[in-house]
Amino acid sequence: MSYDQGHNPRTGQPVGEPVPHTDGAGLDQICRAAAAAAPPLAAPAPPARAAVLRAGAAALRAEQDALVSLADEETALGTARLRSEVVRTCVQLEMFADAVLEGSIFEVVIDLPDPDAQPAPRPDLRRMLVPLGPVAVFSASNFPFAFSVAGGDTASALAAGCPVVVKAHPSHPGLSQLTGRVVAGALAKAGAPEGVFAVVYGTDAGRALVQHPAITAAGFTGSLQGGRALFDLANSRPDPIPFYGELGALNPIVVSQGALAQRADEIVSGFVGSYTLGSGQFCTKPGLLFLPSAHGLDGRLADAVAACSVGPLLNARIQEAFQRTTASFARVQGVRQVVPAAAAKPDSAGYGVAPALLAVPADQLVAHPELLEEAFGPASLLVEYASTEELLAALERVPGSLAAGLHVDPATEPELTATLLERLSARAGRVVFGGWPTGVAVTWAMHHGGPWPATTDPLHTSVGVTAVRRFQRPVVYQNVPEYALPPALQDANPLGIPRRVNGRVTSAPITS
Amino acid sequence: MSYDQGHNPRTGQPVGEPVPHTDGAGLDQICRAAAAAAPPLAAPAPPARAAVLRAGAAALRAEQDALVSLADEETALGTARLRSEVVRTCVQLEMFADAVLEGSIFEVVIDLPDPDAQPAPRPDLRRMLVPLGPVAVFSASNFPFAFSVAGGDTASALAAGCPVVVKAHPSHPGLSQLTGRVVAGALAKAGAPEGVFAVVYGTDAGRALVQHPAITAAGFTGSLQGGRALFDLANSRPDPIPFYGELGALNPIVVSQGALAQRADEIVSGFVGSYTLGSGQFCTKPGLLFLPSAHGLDGRLADAVAACSVGPLLNARIQEAFQRTTASFARVQGVRQVVPAAAAKPDSAGYGVAPALLAVPADQLVAHPELLEEAFGPASLLVEYASTEELLAALERVPGSLAAGLHVDPATEPELTATLLERLSARAGRVVFGGWPTGVAVTWAMHHGGPWPATTDPLHTSVGVTAVRRFQRPVVYQNVPEYALPPALQDANPLGIPRRVNGRVTSAPITS
Repeated sequence: MSYDQGHNPRTGQPVGEPVPHTDGAGLDQICRAAAAAAPPLAAPAPPARAAVLRAGAAALRAEQDALVSLADEETALGTARLRSEVVRTCVQLEMFADAVLEGSIFEVVIDLPDPDAQPAPRPDLRRMLVPLGPVAVFSASNFPFAFSVAGGDTASALAAGCPVVVKAHPSHPGLSQLTGRVVAGALAKAGAPEGVFAVVYGTDAGRALVQHPAITAAGFTGSLQGGRALFDLANSRPDPIPFYGELGALNPIVVSQGALAQRADEIVSGFVGSYTLGSGQFCTKPGLLFLPSAHGLDGRLADAVAACSVGPLLNARIQEAFQRTTASFARVQGVRQVVPAAAAKPDSAGYGVAPALLAVPADQLVAHPELLEEAFGPASLLVEYASTEELLAALERVPGSLAAGLHVDPATEPELTATLLERLSARAGRVVFGGWPTGVAVTWAMHHGGPWPATTDPLHTSVGVTAVRRFQRPVVYQNVPEYALPPALQDANPLGIPRRVNGRVTSAPITS
Repeated sequence: MSYDQGHNPRTGQPVGEPVPHTDGAGLDQICRAAAAAAPPLAAPAPPARAAVLRAGAAALRAEQDALVSLADEETALGTARLRSEVVRTCVQLEMFADAVLEGSIFEVVIDLPDPDAQPAPRPDLRRMLVPLGPVAVFSASNFPFAFSVAGGDTASALAAGCPVVVKAHPSHPGLSQLTGRVVAGALAKAGAPEGVFAVVYGTDAGRALVQHPAITAAGFTGSLQGGRALFDLANSRPDPIPFYGELGALNPIVVSQGALAQRADEIVSGFVGSYTLGSGQFCTKPGLLFLPSAHGLDGRLADAVAACSVGPLLNARIQEAFQRTTASFARVQGVRQVVPAAAAKPDSAGYGVAPALLAVPADQLVAHPELLEEAFGPASLLVEYASTEELLAALERVPGSLAAGLHVDPATEPELTATLLERLSARAGRVVFGGWPTGVAVTWAMHHGGPWPATTDPLHTSVGVTAVRRFQRPVVYQNVPEYALPPALQDANPLGIPRRVNGRVTSAPITS
């Protein structure tokens, strides 16, 4: 029998017991239970659904000491960061609970009958969003709470009213198991139906999961290669299902001559802090920094990197890929090593690496697209441009990203500011002005998505309230009498939610 | 050189000149022009975009005599129906123009900075939907206006701010060419950038279109086989794109014992009228009618069918498929021919067929899934159930549909009513109470979509205002200063559109 085994990235030594992989029969049973849980989970009123989400958050808070301690052993991300991530995960569950109660996420649209409509009289039409059905969630290595077992995909699927089957990440199987137990217990206690939530283990189980007939959608955070393989499986089903994958991003940041003249030191420290944060294992890490050619920052950048304390990477595979990728970048013609791509730190028995910072002229980036691979870990590439034309030509080559940023002096560079905002918003889901892309607020307006390969579907986000929409589909009821309508669609609006009635948004009841 | 040639379905004779297929170089030029048109089309304020949509509608109205006459020659759908379809197509363009001005479709969400947010202070975040880029539209055979060159996909893509490249349906190449000229001329006159709209011809051009690097999404209405092939191409690109296909549906309707006792005659005439409408060439045709076993309606149904005047089918391929499919259904064990599946009407030189009505016990439907193929044309299948259990078991086997319906007596059958509403809404995008699914209103609340194989993506609709969302993606601006923000996101709200600010919807400016 195969299994997942956690390791301590600081030592490379095993942590806890091995967790057996889920076999085919076990997976089938879990998926069938999820399908059976779908109608009872969809049925109750919003307060019951919100209570289930809140119960999950409360249980995580109550168990956070044990969770953080185990997470630190399996990920070495540090207890301060991990405590903050637990808070974020709980805030996220509670945000979705609030959104369920507020009711906009049901997107109710009601058009009352219109006998004069052209070319034909219009019936009574009442539309709302309903849950898709059981959702597969593939959890990430780098956010063991916020993008894992009880993370954003799980929270938004439960908010939509969908049962969830999580595929655990093999880097933190112990934490996945503990989180799964805490959450499953809390949901059951809050009255959620049996089968509403489960965790499965192993690559084979993951592949079978995305192909199981009961599964209606999947959320994924991980690598381009792994995500593409699952995306292809989801689409090659006899009945394809939506696959929402976040696959990797370079997140280009542009620094103008004007910004450089004003605040070079702030840019150096902000950039180095952002690209080495969490050992560079953020999907929003700035992987490309566009700088004017004669920036003269090499020394200051190298000093800032040297002053950084960078923890080990999450697992041996990420360590190996980081070393391979940065070494191959260093060999590309025209690449300068501001902070050389080195082997693992000699003082580390685990998955430690030294941060790297490379530089390349913008025209060489155009000639060497192999530099546009993501180096997951504490490395970034300075792209040095001699002119705005060169900058814009190089930006054209950058694939879709989750985020992008610009540091400009709008007073003296108004045209450049406008051009960059347009170009960057065409290639990224979030544009950061005068700042850094790491740090993703959990809120109504957040969009954490972007054009391929940042995600498999540019319409959707995995963070923020609108993430729930990935797991909902519209249904419109035509001429259904009041007493037979779901409460959200009844004239009286018993849920008191905002609805678009005859084109105008209102929470008022419909009176005839 | 290959070409499309229209034929008159009444005679089988050619109509007009052959239209040459678009070659690879021509297609590439058109797609590049569309890409070049994308930024200038995205930029202007909503009134300019709305004016472009209105100009398209006005031009179609002005040319409707010529358009309807040519459409009737190529489709034989009849001038009354075709005139009504032109009205619908224009109303649809105008509805999207209104929606662009109203502004909810930009889905603006603004979260002002919050220094007290947990686990970290929150920046200024302003999200809106922006156009995806050039869209491929594959037009349908059965609605030569409303789902074709200037139909719902085109209208919603233009409303989103996306250039459109239409792949014409080979059944009406002359009409596609004329509609294309009328629309392209009107858009240009209204100030739309060059390249914003074009029509291409031929299967090879269609396959190349969905794979062209400049194309960012596709809309399709047609067969399961053709749609699946294009869906697979879209997903196998190096950079997959969203493919919104409407592929076919059975649209089951359930009649209860109570409804039958109350109004059998109304049900007979409504059903026969609906399934033979437009010669049964509606994607919302009721293809399955669930009836209590001892309904005793055979004679009345046969009489109603005999009284129908059914025009020829759209082309020779549809005619051949209809004859083949209905004949194969008739050979399935347990199938009874209420109105026999016959060969083409002897009095027709063109693509005429006789309507058919078959019947099968519900348990035989479960045993013979081959009866769940769509027979495009004037045929339907009565599914006769002996008990509610048998009815529900058979409904479980019906694939996802665009629409479903129920005829019940709620006073005496309250439980059955509730059960059927739940079961049917789980399998269809629209549930019609006491009516028939043909006829799809163009309005805010409409949803014309459904689970696979009704569509390739259950989240989306091809009719109604929310169809525009298929061609938009979110972008969030973080800490971007007021003067550099798009107008929709500025504090002053110069567009006067509804926005969600700190969680509440308002059109008021933001004041600090």
